[in-house]
Amino acid sequence: MNAQVIELPSVAPGRLALLGTGTVGSAFVARYQALQARGLALPRFHWLANSRAVLACEGAPEQPLQQVRQAPRVAAAAAPWTQADALHAGDVVVDATASETVAAEHAHWLARGVHVVTANKLGQGAQQQRALQIAARCVETGACYGDSATVGAGLPLLSSLRALVEGGDRIHRIEGVLSGSLAWLFHRYDGQQPFSAAVREALDAGFTEPDPRVDLSGEDVRRKLLILARACGLGLGDDQVLVDSLVPAALAALPHAQALAQLDQLDEPVRQRWQRANDAGQVLRFIGSVEAGAARVGVQSLAADHPLASGAGTDNRVAIHSDRYRHQPLLIQGPGAGAEVTAAALLDDVLRITRNGMADRS
Amino acid sequence: MNAQVIELPSVAPGRLALLGTGTVGSAFVARYQALQARGLALPRFHWLANSRAVLACEGAPEQPLQQVRQAPRVAAAAAPWTQADALHAGDVVVDATASETVAAEHAHWLARGVHVVTANKLGQGAQQQRALQIAARCVETGACYGDSATVGAGLPLLSSLRALVEGGDRIHRIEGVLSGSLAWLFHRYDGQQPFSAAVREALDAGFTEPDPRVDLSGEDVRRKLLILARACGLGLGDDQVLVDSLVPAALAALPHAQALAQLDQLDEPVRQRWQRANDAGQVLRFIGSVEAGAARVGVQSLAADHPLASGAGTDNRVAIHSDRYRHQPLLIQGPGAGAEVTAAALLDDVLRITRNGMADRS
Repeated sequence: MNAQVIELPSVAPGRLALLGTGTVGSAFVARYQALQARGLALPRFHWLANSRAVLACEGAPEQPLQQVRQAPRVAAAAAPWTQADALHAGDVVVDATASETVAAEHAHWLARGVHVVTANKLGQGAQQQRALQIAARCVETGACYGDSATVGAGLPLLSSLRALVEGGDRIHRIEGVLSGSLAWLFHRYDGQQPFSAAVREALDAGFTEPDPRVDLSGEDVRRKLLILARACGLGLGDDQVLVDSLVPAALAALPHAQALAQLDQLDEPVRQRWQRANDAGQVLRFIGSVEAGAARVGVQSLAADHPLASGAGTDNRVAIHSDRYRHQPLLIQGPGAGAEVTAAALLDDVLRITRNGMADRS
Repeated sequence: MNAQVIELPSVAPGRLALLGTGTVGSAFVARYQALQARGLALPRFHWLANSRAVLACEGAPEQPLQQVRQAPRVAAAAAPWTQADALHAGDVVVDATASETVAAEHAHWLARGVHVVTANKLGQGAQQQRALQIAARCVETGACYGDSATVGAGLPLLSSLRALVEGGDRIHRIEGVLSGSLAWLFHRYDGQQPFSAAVREALDAGFTEPDPRVDLSGEDVRRKLLILARACGLGLGDDQVLVDSLVPAALAALPHAQALAQLDQLDEPVRQRWQRANDAGQVLRFIGSVEAGAARVGVQSLAADHPLASGAGTDNRVAIHSDRYRHQPLLIQGPGAGAEVTAAALLDDVLRITRNGMADRS
């Protein structure tokens, strides 16, 4: 709230470690170097790793990034991210993976006072037990858990929800287009080209998870609803999310590589839904909604002037209903997917933590 | 960012003083008592004052509020708010007035380590000199200046802009419906009843400033643009805002009471503008926009499907364009006027300051 906001405080001596060198990890490195070139004080890059290799950074991380990206796939004796166990309290691990195994380590690192900044939704968006452990470790050690990138790619959704709760508001309901990739797909899809062609475009653009079925099944939105609910005290059990998947059972059963080759299994069911909506003068949107004790995920057919029907590109569009926003919701809209905004959200959290440390909860 | 956000930290011993007992001040007291009744830890109410009287609070502030509201108008020897000069460092003054004289005191109180939380836009939204003094005093003493209520009645506008800037983004442009009262008026006005009748409704509902000309002239939006520009480093001089007022010169010249009696001078010019827009299948919206070195305020005629045309009630609707949001803006919409949301924003800032003190910048 301080008026002097654009005077940037100096940065604490914590070091930076990056896990994941895909589109998001690469964009993170690119933004890190761009901000550094503009003279912003940033924590020193210590090392970066992917599932195949880990490399120390002397100076700029760009070259190590390229080496690690080109590292051969080997049967790794020790997983590279175990390197993080050697970090000191005050260092920051950035998780730019979508890895279950890495998410399982978050609480372990926090317990040692190592801050965790993550785009990986499997920390707070998976089992209740893991989410509680992460929260507990933060309180015990004062380490921070930066999760801005996990929902809305850094849109002020989690921060606004937390600010409302800290101001004494009770959150009544959250509803919206929570998947940037599905938003993009249903804006893009015109009933003419096959839906699977649009899915391949989105995958190539980095809008979807490496396995697009994670988005199309509604699993990605389900995780985001769990993260939102857990962040603002909406009581919601893992089993209280009703999900209506776009992925036929046969496609869901296939291994990753085969599934990518058979995405056309998606086409006919979506085309039929689109036709019905179109005949009724409506549009298809993939909606998630959560309130105390209940959550739903799936495609809905909405009138063109429905508040959740607009937006464009990968825009997320979320309505928050609370004590103070009970007549008219707080509505937040903007790009909610893509490597660049996701990487920016990760770096936002890194900067907040290294500047303000534990005091910061925004 | 900490995951354990709904555990509310204990409150520092600072005391609370309220200036202004109109609709906003009264709503502040009501929310204070409602949160206290729910067991939230709040700073102790020390005293409250309006332009006529000051009264100490023993316990709940509701009764002193009513006494002060009923205090007779007298030629005050010493202005009641000079009472604030007796506050200690760490206390919080809440400015729920629209008073130039009170705003002129903000920097003075900050210099003594007294936090200032304000709905009064004349602190950061008036002379550059005063804005710089407020910022400088915060840095010198570590006192906080809570301004969430000054723009968008607590919508996450200032906090989002500051978060973007702290994350290294440069703000390119901000544009939107920034006046809740004018948003309400142009949604409400249908070309049939006189515009002045809608203005009186808005005044009675507490949507406008005590003198509605402050809103209708665009002066209120001009102040908000200055606050937004100063909060995010968009270079903008006091003289770089072009304002197209709705208030005819004759009406602008009248004293407050007479002006309220002659609001019908507004009707014909607005009716004609509305007619032209309506004939073109468009709607009237009162828009403010700011970018480096230039800002504009005034009524625009927009296509019904224009992003800034939607929203309802007193909804503010603001688009933020920045480095990361250069293709699609960040869009924030919600109630941006009214005593209840404004009071909630004031109390948000009070709680943030007394919990997190100087470290908090969100």
